[in-house]
Order: sequence, then structure tokens, then C-alpha cells
Amino acid sequence: MRRIGRFAAPMGWAIACLLSLSLAVPAFAVNQTAAKKVGADQMIKKSAADAAIGKKCISCHGAEDDPGIYGEWKKSSHAAKNVDCYDCHKAKQGEKAAFAHHGASIQVIVTPNTCANCHAAEVAQQQRSHHAKAGNILASLDNLLGEVIGGPAAVNAGCLQCHGSTVVLDDKGRPTPQTWPNTGIGRINPDGSLGSCSACHARHSFSSAQARTPDTCGKCHLGPDHPQLEIYNESKHGILYRAKIKEMNLDSKKWVVGADYTAAPTCATCHMSATREQKVTHDVGERISWTLRPAISTKLNMIRLSTGDEFDQPEGQPLPKVGDEVKGAKVTEILTWTQRRDKMKDVCVACHSANTVAGQYKQFDDLVELYNDKYAKPIAAVMKELEDKGYLTHQPMDAKIKWTWFEIWHHEGRRARHGAAMNGPDYTWWHGIYEVSQHTYFKWIPELKEVVRQKDGNEDFANALLDKHFKPIAGHDWFFNGMGKDAIEKVRKGYDERYGKGALK
Amino acid sequence: MRRIGRFAAPMGWAIACLLSLSLAVPAFAVNQTAAKKVGADQMIKKSAADAAIGKKCISCHGAEDDPGIYGEWKKSSHAAKNVDCYDCHKAKQGEKAAFAHHGASIQVIVTPNTCANCHAAEVAQQQRSHHAKAGNILASLDNLLGEVIGGPAAVNAGCLQCHGSTVVLDDKGRPTPQTWPNTGIGRINPDGSLGSCSACHARHSFSSAQARTPDTCGKCHLGPDHPQLEIYNESKHGILYRAKIKEMNLDSKKWVVGADYTAAPTCATCHMSATREQKVTHDVGERISWTLRPAISTKLNMIRLSTGDEFDQPEGQPLPKVGDEVKGAKVTEILTWTQRRDKMKDVCVACHSANTVAGQYKQFDDLVELYNDKYAKPIAAVMKELEDKGYLTHQPMDAKIKWTWFEIWHHEGRRARHGAAMNGPDYTWWHGIYEVSQHTYFKWIPELKEVVRQKDGNEDFANALLDKHFKPIAGHDWFFNGMGKDAIEKVRKGYDERYGKGALK
Amino acid sequence: MRRIGRFAAPMGWAIACLLSLSLAVPAFAVNQTAAKKVGADQMIKKSAADAAIGKKCISCHGAEDDPGIYGEWKKSSHAAKNVDCYDCHKAKQGEKAAFAHHGASIQVIVTPNTCANCHAAEVAQQQRSHHAKAGNILASLDNLLGEVIGGPAAVNAGCLQCHGSTVVLDDKGRPTPQTWPNTGIGRINPDGSLGSCSACHARHSFSSAQARTPDTCGKCHLGPDHPQLEIYNESKHGILYRAKIKEMNLDSKKWVVGADYTAAPTCATCHMSATREQKVTHDVGERISWTLRPAISTKLNMIRLSTGDEFDQPEGQPLPKVGDEVKGAKVTEILTWTQRRDKMKDVCVACHSANTVAGQYKQFDDLVELYNDKYAKPIAAVMKELEDKGYLTHQPMDAKIKWTWFEIWHHEGRRARHGAAMNGPDYTWWHGIYEVSQHTYFKWIPELKEVVRQKDGNEDFANALLDKHFKPIAGHDWFFNGMGKDAIEKVRKGYDERYGKGALK
Repeated sequence: MRRIGRFAAPMGWAIACLLSLSLAVPAFAVNQTAAKKVGADQMIKKSAADAAIGKKCISCHGAEDDPGIYGEWKKSSHAAKNVDCYDCHKAKQGEKAAFAHHGASIQVIVTPNTCANCHAAEVAQQQRSHHAKAGNILASLDNLLGEVIGGPAAVNAGCLQCHGSTVVLDDKGRPTPQTWPNTGIGRINPDGSLGSCSACHARHSFSSAQARTPDTCGKCHLGPDHPQLEIYNESKHGILYRAKIKEMNLDSKKWVVGADYTAAPTCATCHMSATREQKVTHDVGERISWTLRPAISTKLNMIRLSTGDEFDQPEGQPLPKVGDEVKGAKVTEILTWTQRRDKMKDVCVACHSANTVAGQYKQFDDLVELYNDKYAKPIAAVMKELEDKGYLTHQPMDAKIKWTWFEIWHHEGRRARHGAAMNGPDYTWWHGIYEVSQHTYFKWIPELKEVVRQKDGNEDFANALLDKHFKPIAGHDWFFNGMGKDAIEKVRKGYDERYGKGALK
Repeated sequence: MRRIGRFAAPMGWAIACLLSLSLAVPAFAVNQTAAKKVGADQMIKKSAADAAIGKKCISCHGAEDDPGIYGEWKKSSHAAKNVDCYDCHKAKQGEKAAFAHHGASIQVIVTPNTCANCHAAEVAQQQRSHHAKAGNILASLDNLLGEVIGGPAAVNAGCLQCHGSTVVLDDKGRPTPQTWPNTGIGRINPDGSLGSCSACHARHSFSSAQARTPDTCGKCHLGPDHPQLEIYNESKHGILYRAKIKEMNLDSKKWVVGADYTAAPTCATCHMSATREQKVTHDVGERISWTLRPAISTKLNMIRLSTGDEFDQPEGQPLPKVGDEVKGAKVTEILTWTQRRDKMKDVCVACHSANTVAGQYKQFDDLVELYNDKYAKPIAAVMKELEDKGYLTHQPMDAKIKWTWFEIWHHEGRRARHGAAMNGPDYTWWHGIYEVSQHTYFKWIPELKEVVRQKDGNEDFANALLDKHFKPIAGHDWFFNGMGKDAIEKVRKGYDERYGKGALK
Repeated sequence: MRRIGRFAAPMGWAIACLLSLSLAVPAFAVNQTAAKKVGADQMIKKSAADAAIGKKCISCHGAEDDPGIYGEWKKSSHAAKNVDCYDCHKAKQGEKAAFAHHGASIQVIVTPNTCANCHAAEVAQQQRSHHAKAGNILASLDNLLGEVIGGPAAVNAGCLQCHGSTVVLDDKGRPTPQTWPNTGIGRINPDGSLGSCSACHARHSFSSAQARTPDTCGKCHLGPDHPQLEIYNESKHGILYRAKIKEMNLDSKKWVVGADYTAAPTCATCHMSATREQKVTHDVGERISWTLRPAISTKLNMIRLSTGDEFDQPEGQPLPKVGDEVKGAKVTEILTWTQRRDKMKDVCVACHSANTVAGQYKQFDDLVELYNDKYAKPIAAVMKELEDKGYLTHQPMDAKIKWTWFEIWHHEGRRARHGAAMNGPDYTWWHGIYEVSQHTYFKWIPELKEVVRQKDGNEDFANALLDKHFKPIAGHDWFFNGMGKDAIEKVRKGYDERYGKGALK
């Protein structure tokens, strides 16, 4: 694949990271035979034998001995629909994770396969989604950063708590303490399924209301590299959610924006929940038109396959047609980035006029393009030349300048882009472009010169690279030519008008 | 004006920033003729024609088509008082922002002018306030940092979301997507009014309860340069608010601290809301005695003018008298910084004894003076000499040392000052003076030496500057003379007493 | 004591900090005679004279004049049990803090001694706890950092707001405004008692429900050096608390996890509150097995003494036996680190299976050991050699490399360790080991080389130190030998499998 071939370029790694999550499509194995046994709305039906085992569980794992597990379950829809311990923890003998326990064959790990017994549509969406593939960092360069530079225990207690561990079973079929507990959204389960429904629907109440709260998403979507929760909290959306939580109707089974609530949206509202036109989806990236994750943002078309899986393809690459053979499967559906955006706009218009929504996207798009064109593309081009010409190795993260560039795109540049997407101006500016620009001009450029000076004894090649990749971009004029009389003059005029002639000296 | 004349000094920029917001007094134009049509407490009166148009709006913009807008409005006091879409979106033909829409002349943008029809006093206070002038950064050097260094799209999606855009209309009278939506607190509206009431009272419920929540203020008052929300959340005030939100009585129309609630204050309580002695004010800076924003803090007297406007003047400058002519208008009222502080203390004593309040101000004042005298003044003096003697240009932000100084005062020094003002000790120390001191000694001073060495080939002038501006200050003794036997001895004694003689080696 | 003798070593300071809080055992003086006058559950009994004074207080400090103080008290359990102003503010004549006020002898400062009148057990636990000793930083090197480098006013408005001031009385017995108000957890009171119950139980409602909220602990446990609140908020525990706060039963007098609530734990749940096996304790460190505070973590055994006090002793040092004489007192109880951990596990199992708890501790222990062994120990060893050989002074914080190391262990390394302890993966990784490793390799090592080069004119000794202390550690292989073909190969394979042969170039 051509994009992959560019990996040796400095941008390569960034793009590879993107690919590692969005294009990697390992076969998954939702237990199709067991699925759809019963709809999620009905009382569950089961054999008398199973019912008896379920009752027996509670004789040891009831309110006395396991009050937290039992108590939360007891309040749940599961309890109300007669779904008990054994309905989820039952394991077929011979399954890897099965072990005998007081005469029953059970599993510790409940996987999406099990949940699919009643929630087949949700699991099918989740299995094909970006979320389910979050465990794929395990063989990526991202993981090198963690495993090799940081240390394996940090990957385990850090990265994998969100991305998901590869659950390893001991010889008795029980998960090892290194890999369990883990509720990472892309957990790689012994049965081949991906993820963990309890990543969002915390056990043992598995509440929809809780999963709809923004804090749920904030388990992973926060921090220096993707502060979505912080941005949400700063935004009007978050302000209104906190102020009007009583009007959010979070406990309602049906939760359609514009019908069941209008006070504020949560993360779920925009990315997953139902509108009057769209059903709820557990395919979390469906309504996203830009990817804001890689070093250089692209708009993404989505291609769905006959395997039930899907992948993203950057705008500009030739799109297959429905029916074409791709990756050994038939294309069943294509969602272009504009169609994905339309899905999001359909959420927005529950509360905003179409003009407001268009203005929001205009301002957002402009910011992403500023980031891409003024900063990310020229820096990436220079980094590539530095590697190609032997000023830097092809190894990741073995020079200070590589960390600087990494943080510019992976931390600061994302904060700017996410801030603009979700209306957190502090993240767009102070945590975002302010830092991108400061670190471009006052860290990365000096480091570039130092790298070149170390090899050549002078900075000529660094200056040549800047002339080639930065000078043609109007936004960098001030760097080459000074702030300029024009710019200062503009400010001077403002001062003159306000404070009288000669105010600015 | 003399202060402005100092602009060429390194401190000048910082002071200029202050001036740009606090002293800039463009004429504003609240629609005086329309104002006071009706009090905010009464059912609105309108013509049968207008009422008919109002009803017609809802036939397209009702629960079916605009459920968010309609639903939030329907729950609002506006709906209860018969204020409908047309009452706010009606525009006189010929107004810049007016356009014809299904036979009616309407405006998209509702400005303070419109709100003043019923809320005249609130708008008059808001128009003269610091908040209303937040859009004035547009012609300031602050803006250079954004427009020239960062990039225009970052100013738009970042700065202007809080400060306010200058709304531009297209040839059909509709706001352009670059400048709309925008609910910045200092938005410059086509009708000449300043700001946006929906900056705090989010549309379309315009709830007072929501505006009273601290999260509302946190839309802008957070982050590296003024983390007021984070400080509040750390403070006892915030802790109690979160713990006792049910006792806050936020939905009450009358909301007088000490009468309607005692559980905790929010931002609004201290800066805006009613006490038993004071009415609610939308002039947000009225109770503030220190400005903590510029590089060097000063206490501020406030001068109100016959135009309805007002401005701040640092303590120490000669005060006019009521009746004097200033800035082409008559002085109508002067609030000295002590009077402003008394207004704040009047809030404090609803819950604290006078001694407690005095202690709080003592500890706060001491911190501001430490910051001013030990750090800000000597650094500013050195920076001025560096510019005067040609070691640095007169341009902003074109050398690393300028960014370092900028962050010391604009980020870290403010955090320290705000932390002490509002009782967030982590912000006073770790995010504040800890960083101010670390960066003064281990970033700014080395950079100073480097700047001098680049020009002179030696560090003599840097050392001379430190001797002149730093050495006379007792707090810097350790830097020139080492921690000193005394200081170490003091610690040694503590150890000896506790752990036995010779414990500290 | 031998450990103290190591202070001259670079690690010494860090260890000293630990000691300063955990081993310093000044005599405290709970008013034993007054204690146990009445249990906290009963209506208070008092003389008619005292009752009359109590009533008189309210004639000036009632709803009219002190609505906040009065109003919060009026809602409190105190008011319900007839505990009034005078019951707490009464002072014996002759006590340092006593002064005459309208004919009564009163004190402004209410100390744990006073609270012990009714809450004797809680105060006894609190007085022996780590919390009570937080004021001991006053004579530590930590304090040098604040007093000498930062500035005294920053210590006051910063550090001491959490740690506690030494309250100074003026000649009339009133606390000075520099030292009051202060509700630091280790406040040193004029009567010799330590701390302030209102640090957590905010006056004047002194609510248990409020003290149980995580935000209460977040007054101090947040920020760059110990972001426990942020970690909690990221964790499933915090997510569930925010989502299910209505099910938390916070207002219940009895608040036993697994019996009175199962929705989520707060900080109090795990560290202080009752389980079905344990009573509530105000000895906050009782259930903690690792200390995550110092440069190098150790497991801590706890030794309780006949004085009512206790201290921690790192695992590996010889333990006394019950009855032995230690520090001039008899040992009354020993809690080994495993016993302390068992106390914590007893909390965990209210909601989790024993296997889940074991897995959690395995992952946590692994992270602490990674931090200790790969980073903290070798850096500390190098820093010691630099001091011993005269490359660095024995003074704290007078070289850039000392600040770098300080932040690695005191900020970043703690964040990693606390993140793993409490399940905030972002803090374990991005705010934790990511920064620890980046700053070790790309700040501390270059600074080490610079320090050596400044003295020797070459980097030989720096390289020798790295060879001695870093090279033997497998985790640093990549630094000495490059990422290595193996590591890159592993990633290449991952790419080949997913994207086809040759995908990674």
C-alpha cells in the first residue's frame, strides 16, 4: 500500500500511528450462533438447569459476600429482566477461558461475544468501530515508546488501561494478574472478540445513564494529548450539562436529542446517541469527518465490508464502489466524509440553526487548515529531509528534536484541533496554537539548527530547509522579515485612535 | 497620557495590555429610545401585529423543527412572560443586521441593545464594564501574538470565542461564518453595542441559575493564564459548592447571600450578585481592588463618567473629582480601591468575621507584593535596559527571553496572584511562585546572560544588571551568596531537635 | 538513626522530606481532662451559666449579623444536639488564646483539643496520623525551597494553607493576620494540638457528608506533585461517583461501604470510612502499604506507641516488638505493610473479587518497581556521586539538574505511582512515566554531561557514571545500543502482518 511506503519519511511514523488504529482490521469473531437469542428488551428465557445455577451463584456471591457486585446488579436492568450471574459468566466447556467452579463451567471475563447474546446490533457496531481496534497499538511504534523507552509496567498500568490488554490465561483458564483486571476499550479477549462493554457501561449495573455522562468518556479522552473532556467542560455544552443535569433525562430508556432532552449534549449525544433521524450507534467514529489524531489531519471516508468490518480512507484516495472487492471482502457501504459530517450536523440542528452549524464548521475547518499548512506540513517535510540526508536516524524518539515534533503534533496540535472542534477556546489557543507556534519557532527551529551544526559545523543546511519549506508560507513572514512596520503600524494606529496620537512609542 | 509614553520600556507592553482593556473607552450605543419599554418582571406588551408574527415564527421554528431552541425557550422566564422569538429577533428596517424573512424584518444577532428593552439597568452596567471591552484586544499587541505569530484562524477559534469577534455582515445583512456564531463577552456588534448577554446566559433559556454556576465563568476564566475556575474548585468555596449544591437555591429569583443561601459562594456571589447591602451588578470589576492581570499589579481606582462609561486608574495617579471634565465627559462617581474592596468585604462578611476577612486580605496583599517586588519589577527593569541598550529589539516576542518573561508574569505570576486572591494554595505555590522562581533563576537569568554574551562576547553587562536590580533585594541573597550557613543551619537545628544531634549531614 | 546519616547523599534530601513528615513525632497535647465529656451522639449537657452565654452569643452573631456562620451552624448536627458557639469557642482564662469578650472568656481558634471534648476517638486517631504532622515542613529543606527561594508570603498563601501555619497570637490573644485564617491539616495550634478539624469538616456545619466528597480531599491532594483528585476523577471510581451521586447515601450517619452504598467509593471510603469489618478511622495512612512520596518508594510498617503517637518505618529495617521501648515510649501495636494492605483490600472486596484486587496490586507494584529500579535509584546514585566528588554542592536547588531530578521524582514520578495506585492511566503514562523517561534521557542526562563538562572540560566522568549506574539495567539498553534491530523488527512484523510485506520502511 502506497501510504505505508512513505514510512521512512519523518511523517511516516505519524501516519503509521493513524493506520495502526484505523486501517488495521484483524478478523474478529462475534459469536454469531449465540447472538440474537433474545432482544435486550425482553425477559430472558433460560433452562431450569441454568436458572438453578444462577440462583446458586447468589448463595455465595449475594448481598452478604459480594455486596458491591450484587448490589449494583440488583439495581440494574439485567436483574429486572432476570439476567443473572450465570447468564453472563457461563462458559462452554472447552472455551479457553472456561473453568470449573462448584460444578459449573464459568468464565471470569465477560466479552462482547457474551453481551451479543442480547445486544447483537450494539456489539456488531462496536466490533467494527475504531474503539474496538484500540488494542492494536501493541505492535505499533507507539508501543515502542512505551515498552522500550518507558517500561512494560508503565504500558500495562498506563496505555493498556485505555487501549486494552491482550488478556492472557493461566493454565487453569484464569486471566493472569498482569493482564487482568482490564477494561480497555480495545481489549483483545481470549475468544477473539475485541474490547470490553464495561469500558463504558461499568459493571455490574451496566447503566446507560452512566455511560451517557461525559465523565465516562473522560476515562480515556483527557490529558495532554487529547483533552476532550476538559474541552467539553469548558464549552457551552459542558457548562449547560453541569448546570442543568436534572433536565438531562439521563435515566430515560429512549434518549433522543430534541425529543427527550434539549438542555445540553454530552459526548454520547453527538457521537453515538439517537436523533430524530438517526438511531443510536456504537460505531463511535461514524459522525466524524476530520481525523484530528495524526500529524497531518485529513478528512476520512469510511468503507464498510461484507465481513462486518470497516476502515477509514483519507480523502483524495480513490474510493471503491459498493460491491467492489477490497481487503478480501465486498464493499457493502461507503460513507464519504461529507456524509459523515451530515450525520453530525443532523445532531447539531436539534439545537442550532443550519447557519450556526455552518459557521461552526467554517471556523473549525479554518483552524485545522492553519495547523496543517502553516505548521505540520513544513515541519514534517523538514524532518523527512533530515532523515533522508542522514542528519537524523530512522529510529523513533532518539533525538530531542523528535520529541519536540512529537509533542507539537501529538499533544499541542491536537489540543488546538480538538479545541476548535468542540468549542474550548482555551485549548485552541493557549494549550494549542500558542504552544505550537512557540515550540516551532523557539524550540524546534533552534534544535534543527543544532542538529545541522552538530554534523556540518554550520547552520547552512538548516537555513536552506527553512527557506525551502517555511519561507513560501505567508504566515511565517514575521519570522524572516521581522514583525514588520505594517504590523506594528496597525497596532500603533489602534493606540492612536484610542489614546491619542503618539500613544504607542 | 504619561503611562502610554512608557511603552518603549519592556514593561510597556504589559501595561499597554492592561490599558487596552481597562482604559479603552469607545463610545457605545445602547438603544436609549427602545430601552425601558417594560420592566423585566412584567408580562411584555406588544401590538397585535407583532404578536401575530411571533406566533408565525413558531409555526416553522417550533418543537418539531427547532426542538432545542424552542424547548429551552419554552422553559424560560421569557416564555412565561410572553416574550417570543420576534420580540428579540425583530429588527428595524434599515438596521445593518436587518433582513427580510417571510415578510418580517428580523435580525440573527440579538445584541445587548435588544436585551436593554427590558433589562436596561443590567445592560447599562454591562456596557460600562471591563467585560464589554474585552473585544478591544483586536488592535492590541496581544493580538499581534495571535494574528501574526499563531495565525488568524487560531485567533478566531481561540481568542475571539472569549473576547468576542467583530461581527461582519454579508451583503444580505447576515453575519459571515468567520465571525458567527460568537458569544464572546466583548463582541463588537453591528449596532455598536458591545458583548453578548448569551456569553453567560446561554440561549435560549437565558437562565439566571445557569449564569450563577461557576462553570459558566469557567468558559473563559481557566487555563494557564488565569485559572480562576480551577482555583475556585480547589478552594473551600468550590468544595462546599459541589458538596452542597442542593442548598444553593440557585433557581431562586432573589438570590441574596446570607439571606437566600449560606452554603457557599459562586463566582457570581462575590463579583456580581446581591448582598443584603448591595444590589446585583453586571459591572463585573466593581468589587475588585487589585488588578492581577498586568506584569506589575496595582490597586485600581474607578472613575465613572456622564457618558455612562467608566475606567480604571492605578493608585498613585492624581484622582479627578466628581464634576471634573475627563476624556470629554463629566466625572459622575469615583470608587477608590478601598471603596471597591469594601464592596467585596461586604460580601465576605455574610459568612466570615471581619478579622478573618482582614487576615485573608493581609495574606493576599503580601503575596502580590512579594511577586511585584521580588520578581516583576526587577525583571521588567532589566528587560527595559536590554531594549534601551540594543540587546533586544522593541518588537514583541521575537526572542526566547521575551517568551520566558511573558510566561512569568502572564501565566505563572498571575496564577500565584489569583491563587492567593481566591484561596487555591496549589495555584499560589506550585503553579505560581514555584514556577516564577524556578524560571527567574534557571531560565530567565541564563537567557539574560546568553543575550548579553551573544552581543558582547562576555556576560559582564548581564551581571551588572543583576547587581543593579536584583542584589539590593533581600529575597535574592541566596542567589548571590549561596543558601548560606544560616539557612542551612536553621534546617540543621530542626533536624537536630527532632532526630538527634548530627542528623543532618 | 542510620537513615538520617545518609542525608549528605543526593537522595538524602528526598528521604529527609519523607522523614520530616512521617517520623517527626513532636509531643502533642490533646486535652485529656476535657475529653470524653460527652459522646458525639448525645445532646450536650452544660451549666446554666454556659447556656446563657451561648444564647447571648447569638444575640450578636445570629441570622441578622452573621448569617453564614449562623445559618450553616443552624443546619448542623451541632445545633440539633444543642452545641452552640460557646461550647466550642469557650476558653479557660489563662490559656494563651483566651481573651475577654463581652464578659466571657473565649477563643477565636477552635482546635482539635476542643473537638475532642465530644469526639475523643476521632481526635486521638487524627493526632497520631500523618495528617497532623503536615506542619512539620516548617523546619525542613522543603521549606527552604519556599521561604528562601520562593518567598515567605508564598509559603504563607501557598504551602501553609494545606500544611498548616504555626498560629501566632498577638498580645491580646488574638491570632495574627499573617497566620490566621488557616485551616491547614497540620496547623500548629497555640495549645499544642496539631491540625484543624475544619480542614475537612468545613465550618460551621462541620458536615460528614461534605467531608466524604472527593473534592474535600482535593483541596490539597491535586496538582503537579500529587494529583490524587485528578486521578480519582479519571478513574472508574470517580466516574461512577459523579454519575451516581444520588445513590451515594452521603448524608447517612452510618456509612459503611457494601452496606449503606455500593455505587462508588470516594477518597474517604478507601482511606478512612467504615467497612463491614473495620470502623471509620481518622488515622488516614493506616491502610497505605507503599509510600509514594519520596524519591524512592518503600513499603512502610507502622509502629504505634504508648504516647498515642505512631510512626512509619520502611520495610527492611528491623522491626521492634510490642512492648519494646522506642523513642522513649512503649510499642503498643505494629501494623506491617501487609497488614496495612489487608486493611485496604478489605475495602476493595466490598465491590471486587479477591482476584481482581490481586491483579490491581500486581499491576501497581510492578509500576512502582519500574519507577524505583529503572529511574529513581540510578539517578539518585549518580546525584550522590556528583555531590561526593564536588561536581555539585551539598546545597539544595542551586543547580538546574537538581530541579530536573526534583521534578522527576517529586512531580512526574509521583504522578506515575499515584496513577497506578488509583487507576488513572493518563497520570501513570502521559503525566507520569512518559515525562520521567523523556526528562531522564533528554534533560537530566544532557545536564549531567554539562555539569561534568563545566568542571572537567570533557564528559568522560558523566559517561562513566552512566556506564556504572545505568548500563546494567536492561531497560536502558536502547539508550546505549539504539532501538535495535530486534525492537524495530518486532514492529516491522506487526506491520507486515497487517499491511502486507514491506509495509514498514
